[in-house]
Amino acid sequence: VWRMLEKNQLFERRQTMLSDDEKRLTAKQLIELHHSGVFDNIHTQCYKKRTRYIMTVNEATNLYSPSLSVKYALGVSLFANAILSLGTERHKKFFNDVWEGKILSCLALTELAHGSDTKHLRTTATYDSTTQEFIIHTPDYQAAKWWVGNLGKQCTHAMMFAQLWSGATCHGLHAFIVPVRDPATLLPYPGLTVGDIGEKVGLHGIDNGFIMFNMYRIPRENLLNRIGDVTPDGEYETSFTDPQRILGAALENLSAGRVAIMQESANTLACAVTIAVRYAALRSQFCDIAGQELPLLSYQLHQWRLFKHLAAAYVLKVFVRDFSNQYLDCVVLSHSGSEDMKMLSNMVSGVHAIVCCSKPLVTWAARDAIQEAREACGGNGYLKAAALGDLRNNHDPTVTYEGDNNVLLQQTSNWLLRQGQQLNGDSDQLYFPLNCAHYLTSASASDARYCGGLVCSHTFVEKTFDWLVSWLLEATRCKVESLSAQSDRFMARNLSQVFHAHTLSLAFAQNNVLKYFWSHCESSEAQLRPVLENLYYLYAFTCLQTYLSTLYQGGYCVGPQLADNIN
Amino acid sequence: VWRMLEKNQLFERRQTMLSDDEKRLTAKQLIELHHSGVFDNIHTQCYKKRTRYIMTVNEATNLYSPSLSVKYALGVSLFANAILSLGTERHKKFFNDVWEGKILSCLALTELAHGSDTKHLRTTATYDSTTQEFIIHTPDYQAAKWWVGNLGKQCTHAMMFAQLWSGATCHGLHAFIVPVRDPATLLPYPGLTVGDIGEKVGLHGIDNGFIMFNMYRIPRENLLNRIGDVTPDGEYETSFTDPQRILGAALENLSAGRVAIMQESANTLACAVTIAVRYAALRSQFCDIAGQELPLLSYQLHQWRLFKHLAAAYVLKVFVRDFSNQYLDCVVLSHSGSEDMKMLSNMVSGVHAIVCCSKPLVTWAARDAIQEAREACGGNGYLKAAALGDLRNNHDPTVTYEGDNNVLLQQTSNWLLRQGQQLNGDSDQLYFPLNCAHYLTSASASDARYCGGLVCSHTFVEKTFDWLVSWLLEATRCKVESLSAQSDRFMARNLSQVFHAHTLSLAFAQNNVLKYFWSHCESSEAQLRPVLENLYYLYAFTCLQTYLSTLYQGGYCVGPQLADNIN
Ligand SMILES: Cc1cc2nc3c(=O)[nH]c(=O)nc-3n(C[C@H](O)[C@H](O)[C@H](O)COP(=O)(O)OP(=O)(O)OC[C@H]3O[C@@H](n4cnc5c(N)ncnc54)[C@H](O)[C@@H]3O)c2cc1C
Ligand SMILES: Cc1cc2nc3c(=O)[nH]c(=O)nc-3n(C[C@H](O)[C@H](O)[C@H](O)COP(=O)(O)OP(=O)(O)OC[C@H]3O[C@@H](n4cnc5c(N)ncnc54)[C@H](O)[C@@H]3O)c2cc1C
Repeated sequence: VWRMLEKNQLFERRQTMLSDDEKRLTAKQLIELHHSGVFDNIHTQCYKKRTRYIMTVNEATNLYSPSLSVKYALGVSLFANAILSLGTERHKKFFNDVWEGKILSCLALTELAHGSDTKHLRTTATYDSTTQEFIIHTPDYQAAKWWVGNLGKQCTHAMMFAQLWSGATCHGLHAFIVPVRDPATLLPYPGLTVGDIGEKVGLHGIDNGFIMFNMYRIPRENLLNRIGDVTPDGEYETSFTDPQRILGAALENLSAGRVAIMQESANTLACAVTIAVRYAALRSQFCDIAGQELPLLSYQLHQWRLFKHLAAAYVLKVFVRDFSNQYLDCVVLSHSGSEDMKMLSNMVSGVHAIVCCSKPLVTWAARDAIQEAREACGGNGYLKAAALGDLRNNHDPTVTYEGDNNVLLQQTSNWLLRQGQQLNGDSDQLYFPLNCAHYLTSASASDARYCGGLVCSHTFVEKTFDWLVSWLLEATRCKVESLSAQSDRFMARNLSQVFHAHTLSLAFAQNNVLKYFWSHCESSEAQLRPVLENLYYLYAFTCLQTYLSTLYQGGYCVGPQLADNIN
Repeated sequence: VWRMLEKNQLFERRQTMLSDDEKRLTAKQLIELHHSGVFDNIHTQCYKKRTRYIMTVNEATNLYSPSLSVKYALGVSLFANAILSLGTERHKKFFNDVWEGKILSCLALTELAHGSDTKHLRTTATYDSTTQEFIIHTPDYQAAKWWVGNLGKQCTHAMMFAQLWSGATCHGLHAFIVPVRDPATLLPYPGLTVGDIGEKVGLHGIDNGFIMFNMYRIPRENLLNRIGDVTPDGEYETSFTDPQRILGAALENLSAGRVAIMQESANTLACAVTIAVRYAALRSQFCDIAGQELPLLSYQLHQWRLFKHLAAAYVLKVFVRDFSNQYLDCVVLSHSGSEDMKMLSNMVSGVHAIVCCSKPLVTWAARDAIQEAREACGGNGYLKAAALGDLRNNHDPTVTYEGDNNVLLQQTSNWLLRQGQQLNGDSDQLYFPLNCAHYLTSASASDARYCGGLVCSHTFVEKTFDWLVSWLLEATRCKVESLSAQSDRFMARNLSQVFHAHTLSLAFAQNNVLKYFWSHCESSEAQLRPVLENLYYLYAFTCLQTYLSTLYQGGYCVGPQLADNIN
């Protein structure tokens, strides 16, 4: 992909443009990418091969231009995947058209008044059996679709989520394919109020848009009907004929975008760190007593500022790579129908829980690394040419979109609390996908104590982190329970976030990531191992430092030793 | 100032422009500001009145456009102040010209290869007694002046720092007024290679530039000669006739810009927090079990994310206001010549030490608040219209310029270590300006322990923070001493930054800020006091949380109580 981009003038690096020009350029680049042959025939491949391929191209494109990769993902690949998983045979035409570049899509979920809270979205799709059409309607401007990438200027079709009404009954959110613009002229169709939401902090190449529907009619067949359908005469049917596929579809639609964001963010992190470490190796400042100028990298403070991010880059990159593979296997497995439903459903919710805490972990790690890298490069880090400003501004929305980080973390803690409940009850029911939380079942974790000695050991890190997550889980469970006694469960959850559920999810994510990286250490060449282990310890201790007070508070240790040793 | 800006079309809010257009607009706005009458006759006022007035206008302008306020500061006010403090009667003309808008200046210190390390700047100013001129020369491109604001396109004069050579002797860095462009045409003079350094992350209205001098001649009189001068026949003379003024001048030139940055950053912080808190009060998301949508502000997690920054906004704003006043008094005092030199010199270095740790504290606090505010506003925080992106990009360089934060912090810890040394020796020598560190002299601080009980008390906060700073000072001192035994002092300092000197400076800064805010609480109306005290506690506990492990490590407390109570 990079070789292709390098050869083509359209992808030359340019000075900053006005955002309308940036959008125009990105639109052209998208067409060029389509024509480049990179994607030829890929849609005929099997799921795993196709998705891995698309993910790889996405990573490569993202490092060149986040706008371009996002535009492609929303406009083509995520749309195509969603059709395969949520649609049926009758939507094949859209799938083919989008792969051939005849149409371009957007994914329209968010409304002006509702983002994280998707349950309360208010756009309606009311079935009219007399014409066999859905009438899409926006009750008021607060229900306008909002922030939708590609919708501002260019897309021809929207994969749009609305409350499905048939007769007097609302059947909840469903996805519809809604024609928005004439593919020949790109003029919007009558009945639509559509436009660009205006300037943003970054991603200037994306035309994020809004849309309001005024009794806008689409054919009945445009409902993506794998999970639920409406018969011509208005009967609502749920098709549970293919339950595994539904599970897989659910997993995929919730997670594919998030996994891609993790992949991109791990690269962004590595990129920022590389810039700062290289600069620090070459930039000298101040002389030692011999009058020799010292590279920044030789200063303890500078090492401390950068090396923790360097370690994060390795640990997270390896985690994301290995986990992505498992995630894809998981989707395939859930498609295959060869396993029992209970196990599959546990697996799907477990993988979902890992995604929901890992996406925040990785995106925040990249955010912090970019900022430190920018500051570590001094004034020159503030030059556009240093790339760190654009990295920051383009990376920034990853903490918000595809699920706001703070909201996602609550899904993981809820899942952990559910596992905890099962722990206290029927432990046969327990299933931890990828063994991510098996330690929660062993009583030894919560009994562990630090009794001095070596901290640069895998046993120490594992024992300590397992203790930490177990302790936080138990503390959170107690907190939720005591609050539930006084008020309802919803309030109890809200009031047990700070120092509890929120911390729990992040610590769980870090522990998980460390386990992946340790496996990687174990299976790597003997020569590399010492280096990888150092990165492992550095990442582990950087994380543990933020929990030191919890380790004291929970009685895992007493006296100065642990803090001394970890520092 | 705001009323004036509102009325004038030139200051209307605009969509993003290309950076060249932004520079042109800011240049026009600067002229308009000059013509507005805001500054009329202000240069004839006494030092304190003038400087306070300029600082206030700077704060007002900065909130409208950081580019404009920076352009004005570099181009007019800092230049004018520097002439008064570093120059003599013969430079009065430049002072008058710049106030009248006939010339525009820049402050050229940084070179391509040397930023923080100003001692090793390599531009030379060699005196030629045959023509009574200085020959300014750039030995190679690494010694090009670099990053200089206003130099890229517009300024006519540079206040430039170069190594003064006379005969075969180098007398170190001195400031020179160097004509750069013809004020009538803005064309650069022959012998200069000058231009714009290119696009940046923010401050698009500033034309940061570079310059190289090729045996460029300026009159002998252009040396700012208050501290050192060269006679017509090339004799170097230091004029110690007016030592207090020199101290004051040193303080002012080192600190005026930093104090202004603190003022701006406190406003930036307040601005970011206000945006996010207001949004959180109006934005609802998710329903309670009664089906009522809840404002974001009602969620514990959201409060926790924002209110610590809200507290920081109040605490830091009050500190900066009160400290700025004291700083100005200090400069006035040092000008007055009515105090003994030893005391004055102690005071100047103490105020300098406070500035060196407070500028990092305030600028980083603003940086963190902006980012949290941006995330707390969800997707809409990523709109340009939300203002948080521009706040972030324009605020960003404050952590680097006028002294990189991490480098500045070392000056404070060095000063604290020096005070510590005196503590162990002749304690009569001790002088803590503004009483900022008197607690270091009392043995009780280091003996304090937490024995349970109330943490929402001024006594607890003060006792704990005093203990913390004393402990960190002692730990740093030991570390430096033991390292000094093994290597030289320079290496010992470098190797005792992390967990020691660096942490010490920041903790000292926070303690100091809290003391200012507590005084403010004590002197405020009874009605306001409970609210202010809550903000005090919130800020104090937010800071203390990051030191909890140190409190355990140092034996200030044992068991879960302190962590529990602070949380
Ligand atoms: C660049 C960009 C591109 C986008 N592209 C698309 C797109 O193509 N299609 C699309 O449909 N949408 C898109 N979005 C919208 C995106 O999905 C939403 O911004 C995201 O879901 C968050 O919703 P929100 O912005 O409404 O934030 P809100 O849900 O209003 O959240 C605001 C803040 O409140 C906090 N919060 C919310 N609920 C709680 C709670 N219960 N407890 C504690 N805290 C809470 C959150 O942590 C967050 O910080 C895009 C957004 C951006 C920035
Ligand atoms: C927007 C902007 C405007 C500016 N305007 C002007 C201007 O008008 N005039 C002017 O003269 N200059 C100007 N500057 C330059 C500015 O003063 C310098 O960038 C600043 O002094 C830092 O120097 P540096 O960039 O060379 O960083 P360096 O000194 O190279 O430092 C780079 C990094 O190394 C770290 N570091 C350096 N030394 C040590 C050490 N001993 N121990 C540990 N860490 C260390 C620092 O913390 C920093 O993170 C401007 C800069 C910017 C960004």
